[in-house]
Amino acid sequence: MTRYVYRFRAGEADGRAEQSKLLGGKGAGLAEMAHLGLPVPPGFTITTEVCNHFYAHENTYPAELPDKVDAALDELGELTESGFGMPDQPLLLAVRAGAPMAMPGMMDTVLDLGLNDETVQGLAARTGDLRFAYDCYRRFVAMYGRIVMGVGAEVPREDSPFARILADKMAEREIEDEAELSADDLKSLVTAYKIEILREVETPFPEAPLTQLWGAVGAVLRSWNNPRARVYRRLNGISDGLGTAVTVQAMVFGNLGPSGAAGVAFTRDPSTGERHLYGEFLLGAQGDEVVSGHKTPVSLSDLARRLPEAYAELVDVSGRLEEHFGDLQNLEFTVEHGKLWLLETRAGECSGRAAVRIAVDLVREGRIDEKDAVLRVEPDKIGELLRPGIDPAHRPVALASGLPAAPGAAVGRVVFSAADAAEWSHRGDSVILVRVDTSPEDIHGMKAASGILTARGGMTSHAAVVARAMGKSCVTSCAEVTIDMARERFSVGETVVKKGDVVTLDGATGELFPGALPLIPAASSEALDTLMGWVDDRRRLKVRTNADTPVDARTARAYGAEGIGLCRTEHMFFGPGRLIALQRMILAADDDERRAALDEILPLQRADFREIFEIMDGLPVTIRLLDPPLHEFLPRAAAGMADLARELDRRPDDIAATVRALDELNPMLGQRGCRLGLSHPAIYDMQARAIAEAAVAATAAGITVKPEIMVPFVSLPGELRILRERIERILSEVLSAAEVELAIVIGTTIEVPRACLVGDQIAAHADFFSFGTNDLTQTTYGISRDDAGRFLPAYLEGELMSSDPFTVLDRRGVGALIRIGVEQGRAKKTKLKIGICGEHGGEPRSIEFCHREGFDYVSCSPFRVPVARIAAAQAALRREARAK
Amino acid sequence: MTRYVYRFRAGEADGRAEQSKLLGGKGAGLAEMAHLGLPVPPGFTITTEVCNHFYAHENTYPAELPDKVDAALDELGELTESGFGMPDQPLLLAVRAGAPMAMPGMMDTVLDLGLNDETVQGLAARTGDLRFAYDCYRRFVAMYGRIVMGVGAEVPREDSPFARILADKMAEREIEDEAELSADDLKSLVTAYKIEILREVETPFPEAPLTQLWGAVGAVLRSWNNPRARVYRRLNGISDGLGTAVTVQAMVFGNLGPSGAAGVAFTRDPSTGERHLYGEFLLGAQGDEVVSGHKTPVSLSDLARRLPEAYAELVDVSGRLEEHFGDLQNLEFTVEHGKLWLLETRAGECSGRAAVRIAVDLVREGRIDEKDAVLRVEPDKIGELLRPGIDPAHRPVALASGLPAAPGAAVGRVVFSAADAAEWSHRGDSVILVRVDTSPEDIHGMKAASGILTARGGMTSHAAVVARAMGKSCVTSCAEVTIDMARERFSVGETVVKKGDVVTLDGATGELFPGALPLIPAASSEALDTLMGWVDDRRRLKVRTNADTPVDARTARAYGAEGIGLCRTEHMFFGPGRLIALQRMILAADDDERRAALDEILPLQRADFREIFEIMDGLPVTIRLLDPPLHEFLPRAAAGMADLARELDRRPDDIAATVRALDELNPMLGQRGCRLGLSHPAIYDMQARAIAEAAVAATAAGITVKPEIMVPFVSLPGELRILRERIERILSEVLSAAEVELAIVIGTTIEVPRACLVGDQIAAHADFFSFGTNDLTQTTYGISRDDAGRFLPAYLEGELMSSDPFTVLDRRGVGALIRIGVEQGRAKKTKLKIGICGEHGGEPRSIEFCHREGFDYVSCSPFRVPVARIAAAQAALRREARAK
Repeated sequence: MTRYVYRFRAGEADGRAEQSKLLGGKGAGLAEMAHLGLPVPPGFTITTEVCNHFYAHENTYPAELPDKVDAALDELGELTESGFGMPDQPLLLAVRAGAPMAMPGMMDTVLDLGLNDETVQGLAARTGDLRFAYDCYRRFVAMYGRIVMGVGAEVPREDSPFARILADKMAEREIEDEAELSADDLKSLVTAYKIEILREVETPFPEAPLTQLWGAVGAVLRSWNNPRARVYRRLNGISDGLGTAVTVQAMVFGNLGPSGAAGVAFTRDPSTGERHLYGEFLLGAQGDEVVSGHKTPVSLSDLARRLPEAYAELVDVSGRLEEHFGDLQNLEFTVEHGKLWLLETRAGECSGRAAVRIAVDLVREGRIDEKDAVLRVEPDKIGELLRPGIDPAHRPVALASGLPAAPGAAVGRVVFSAADAAEWSHRGDSVILVRVDTSPEDIHGMKAASGILTARGGMTSHAAVVARAMGKSCVTSCAEVTIDMARERFSVGETVVKKGDVVTLDGATGELFPGALPLIPAASSEALDTLMGWVDDRRRLKVRTNADTPVDARTARAYGAEGIGLCRTEHMFFGPGRLIALQRMILAADDDERRAALDEILPLQRADFREIFEIMDGLPVTIRLLDPPLHEFLPRAAAGMADLARELDRRPDDIAATVRALDELNPMLGQRGCRLGLSHPAIYDMQARAIAEAAVAATAAGITVKPEIMVPFVSLPGELRILRERIERILSEVLSAAEVELAIVIGTTIEVPRACLVGDQIAAHADFFSFGTNDLTQTTYGISRDDAGRFLPAYLEGELMSSDPFTVLDRRGVGALIRIGVEQGRAKKTKLKIGICGEHGGEPRSIEFCHREGFDYVSCSPFRVPVARIAAAQAALRREARAK
Repeated sequence: MTRYVYRFRAGEADGRAEQSKLLGGKGAGLAEMAHLGLPVPPGFTITTEVCNHFYAHENTYPAELPDKVDAALDELGELTESGFGMPDQPLLLAVRAGAPMAMPGMMDTVLDLGLNDETVQGLAARTGDLRFAYDCYRRFVAMYGRIVMGVGAEVPREDSPFARILADKMAEREIEDEAELSADDLKSLVTAYKIEILREVETPFPEAPLTQLWGAVGAVLRSWNNPRARVYRRLNGISDGLGTAVTVQAMVFGNLGPSGAAGVAFTRDPSTGERHLYGEFLLGAQGDEVVSGHKTPVSLSDLARRLPEAYAELVDVSGRLEEHFGDLQNLEFTVEHGKLWLLETRAGECSGRAAVRIAVDLVREGRIDEKDAVLRVEPDKIGELLRPGIDPAHRPVALASGLPAAPGAAVGRVVFSAADAAEWSHRGDSVILVRVDTSPEDIHGMKAASGILTARGGMTSHAAVVARAMGKSCVTSCAEVTIDMARERFSVGETVVKKGDVVTLDGATGELFPGALPLIPAASSEALDTLMGWVDDRRRLKVRTNADTPVDARTARAYGAEGIGLCRTEHMFFGPGRLIALQRMILAADDDERRAALDEILPLQRADFREIFEIMDGLPVTIRLLDPPLHEFLPRAAAGMADLARELDRRPDDIAATVRALDELNPMLGQRGCRLGLSHPAIYDMQARAIAEAAVAATAAGITVKPEIMVPFVSLPGELRILRERIERILSEVLSAAEVELAIVIGTTIEVPRACLVGDQIAAHADFFSFGTNDLTQTTYGISRDDAGRFLPAYLEGELMSSDPFTVLDRRGVGALIRIGVEQGRAKKTKLKIGICGEHGGEPRSIEFCHREGFDYVSCSPFRVPVARIAAAQAALRREARAK
């Protein structure tokens, strides 16, 4: 017979920590703490099996569940010397969701359950505080009305009918602080709330505690499938099939009297990893008020002063918990009448900096080994750690400042809604999401933003916790900022910042600056260097970088890039004196004019390559020949055409005619890449010459040069064959004239499905394959990334896609093609070098795929290099573990 | 030791007909005719092995070849009582290319070889005709200068320096007919030509006959790789590796005296297939003048009157050859001094009508069996046969008329160059190519055109022969037409037709009409019905049609379509009263307005389906739900937007804003197909309802309805699952309300690579897969068909692509994906129905692929249905033969 209900109380429990799949993280943590004899309010956990039964059987419970719950309630009553619904000694309960994976704030909680018109009197008698009892009661009715009965559930809590009734009451009483409301006021609110519920849903608020309990359990179970929980799971790769447990626990009251408090604590500093108790609390508050962001909590160090005994016990408990779990713990606690109660412990979310420091410290403290340390740091955290800071040489006075909630600096356009953040970011804009405070509904916008700024909330507010988990720059509690949501702008004093304006955020200092400030890479730390040493010993994949400029190349090398996997040359055409030459080339009347224009670009491009070769001394540099269609280099607006016509001394009509002639209905699938190389051979000729000449010059200067020339967008083996012959002719011309011996290899991007399918034929002419997974994803799905904004977000929010295929490689579809391409390529040429240069090259799950498929290297943006290094090491370790 | 040289003379030969791979078609035919004792001028053939050696060894010959050629020349001299280079009895030679597959007019020929300042005197003495001898000599020098020495090779023959010198001479002599040139004039031309050669290439014209011979052999071998030959091979799927043979043959002179002639003959009428000798000739001419199109030859029936003995022998020979080869033969002959000589015999190119009639007649004559007949008719020929004619009820008086060179009527825009024909046709325009006469350089334009009109040339001119082979409508010798190439227009009397104007051509009558005339399907013939009966007994693949309208459906059913494989519904939205309703739907402010607009369309669409169900009574009808992006239904120009705003009583700005909002950078990869179905569910709801209601109504009327609903552009299994559930709900609602039991199956197009790769997952929700190979080709290659015009033609002309992948399915790339899709789909669902609905469904090689991959059906445009039927039968027969 299935047990379904697992009890716990200080000193003993039915469950253990490792049962989090059954009991949820919260239930398992409480059970473990109970076993350790730590002070937890007694209670029981209804298992995730019940949740799965609930969804599989039209929202009903297993037949034996009610009896089990009744028995557990009886036991709980005995233990607490109270009874559920007992008028004079009422047992009050907290009913909380607890999923196997942390989903902070995603699901529902009901506190103070068990209160009704009778038991409220008992609570008043027991606590000797009528006002407190009615305050609990009105909070409970509002919470229950909203969460279980759905009244006002569709609007933010502050706009709900209950909030309105409360505001009306305060206005009527002409007070500004809820604390000034009298017991009578609160009692009348209870009545008003109940009337509102009856009016809204035509069902009375249930007075019977058992009805309340089952209502709350059902609501908690239903909350597993609420939209924000589903989005969260999708974003975090959590399976919908896990289900949530429900933990039912005797209430303890942080809001009862002056020696009450509620707070959260971390066993080490989750920002820096330093080894000291860290956290925040509110005096006289319930736990949900600490994390809601509505009140700004104070630092735990204050607790030592206010409630020294509770603080001492907290320090002790926190040490024991970390010792026991061998990892950073995040605790939730309440102090009632000076006594400490633990409500939750779980592995703590922390910043990348902290994660690295803690992992390294734990090895040094002898708690874990190096392999554990490598596996324990989420690769994305390293990315956050390395996100740039503001160049101190160009740091102006801040416009405003708040709390440094998540480190890293970010530059972006200001938006005021999650929807705008998602849409603008999809368009390629970096955005800063500005909110009064964030709620779980904002998750997808936060994911899309580079940085988050909130006017309210503390270091453990929703915005701060989520931003740290996501590795986003975040400033909270920036009170100087006055946000006008309706007009989509905010002001700081006289300064007004409108939607679309660019700002810079420094999450490390909590400062906000107008405009875009120059950023510099974060300095590395000793802990990071140590960890990365362990990482590099354990990976097989090489990690290169996508870098088009000397600055990027230098940054990437500093971050450990082992060469350049993708140097796009189109950006080199946009520099001063270059674009105009390229435009002259495009508009040339004949070959001579075309070559003359390219001759102007040659020395500039040669100098670019020369510098990059020097920076990458000794390492391979893969240069992609021009890829985008020519129309991208011409102006589209009439004014731009007129300017160009003047500059080139041509008729504007001619320019317009060329622009029209080059226009494409589907440029993504048009005359680009090698198609352009074949129709305009002078361009690639010039580029090959520039590469060869730069290599010769660098070699002469004692630099070890390893150039790799990449021909883009090949779908036919012949394209590569013809271009390769042409390029080789030029290379050998330049090299033999200079009497330099140098191997310059030639390969191709694999970025259309056909290239994978004819991989053997293409490999015959290629020294390497570099999978261009951005375009390969576009063509495999038939999705234009530029246009997907209208349907992809809906796909991601619904059940259609578990992750954005442009972020996480689609292993089943795109991955199958890659596998075919690798197999065919290697079948033809065993030593074929294989890499990836799409954005997936910096994404851990995709890197794991590349490792498994026998790639030689991944290439990613400079700041992702360390992420890729650790992801590659983890892939190797996991595969090793699986092989055992 | 390899033989390399194969001799032939009346009565004996080294080779046989089946050695065409070695001897070329010409050499093998001559050898076989020699064996049959037919009158062929003696000679020898240098094999294709020599050609392959030539290309493999830097344009050199096998070491033993010269001796073998010398020996063959000696023997030839003995046989003809002459000697190569012998001053008094000169042996003169014709040197001709002869490939294994017919490549008419593609490669080079040199006649009268062996003439020099000495031997010309011998020729004069032997023929007693000094003028004739010098005429031969000056023709030879010009031909040799052009073909072997490359003088004027880059311009059309009529613009060459030799033509200019001739024109100057005639002007100087004030004559208009070459025949009036005296022997002295011709002699001076010889000198002038030689000077021109020396001046141009700084090499003298070679007087030594052996030098001439090796020069000519080399030129013929090189002509195998000239661009027009390469294009021809690509268009006709002939391998570049075959190589050409060179046939060297004693000259006979059709231009010597009044009883000389040259001509071509077919053993049956190549237009109709009727069983009588058919052909054309020119009195006093050499063979190359008959096919050049510069002079208009006369019908063979005239030969009976002019040279009755030669004619009688020709009739006799033609009967023997057809008897011997068991197929239509195409002969080339020369009459010298009244004696008939055969220069070539080969299987004759004929019209589709003739091919069918001849195949059926040959079965009836007991020469071949039914299977042979089915295999013998090229499927594309059937297409031509069934191309529509002009509706006799609407046939006006013709603007002009010429020779009915290739049957079938065509409507299209007039263009004057092959390049324009290719480009316009690529854009989707039907074009009529108008030329003075065509040359091999025009091949790709002719391929692209719907019809060809030439002012000159006969029934066997280049234009006529090629058009018949390609199944294009063609009118030649339309002398009333005056073409102004420079201004790109032509005139007939007062009427001027400019580039881009629409005309109608009737290749069956030789008439030209201004404007677009209504066309009707060609009537079937008894022979075709017989053949198609044999065809249908032998195929396994079902053949359906792509038909959006009742007219198309009716035509296709008449042509034997076994259902509709693709009924696109977007065209149904363009009718009167529909577009505006759809536009109102797109611009609707809310769901109610949206549904109201769709409610207007519902009855119209239901009526469409009802009619199509009736036409296809008893057969499946696959209806594709709306596929194109919504912006295709809105006006783009300001004027159109203003009109629409007026009509819908909205602000033009709102319309413009919607158009802008819907605009896509890559619409091919945008919000279309099921993505639209999911974002605008009301559209598919309406369509599903219309289908169900139409099916109910048709069933009530006693019609057997088999609807199949096709969801387009699926890349994720979930897309189909969600839409299928929705559609099924509506279907069962309508069917159960009507109390009708009816199976309506639901499937999907497979048209992006990912759909193939996750075929099993998609098959879980699909009753059928229909491969949309147009889009699948676009996505697999990463080629937008709309934009490919700028590089694809060059790819096809070069060596990159052997055929247009949008015409002939790319088996290696796209085919590999299809195979994966079929395997995965059938692995999940053994009975999964599989078809193809891209344009490849009507292309024989692609149909063979579908047969091999186990498809259930192909679907193609109505006029291709019979083509597909025969291609399917041939695929089955060939596979059967291979299995034996």
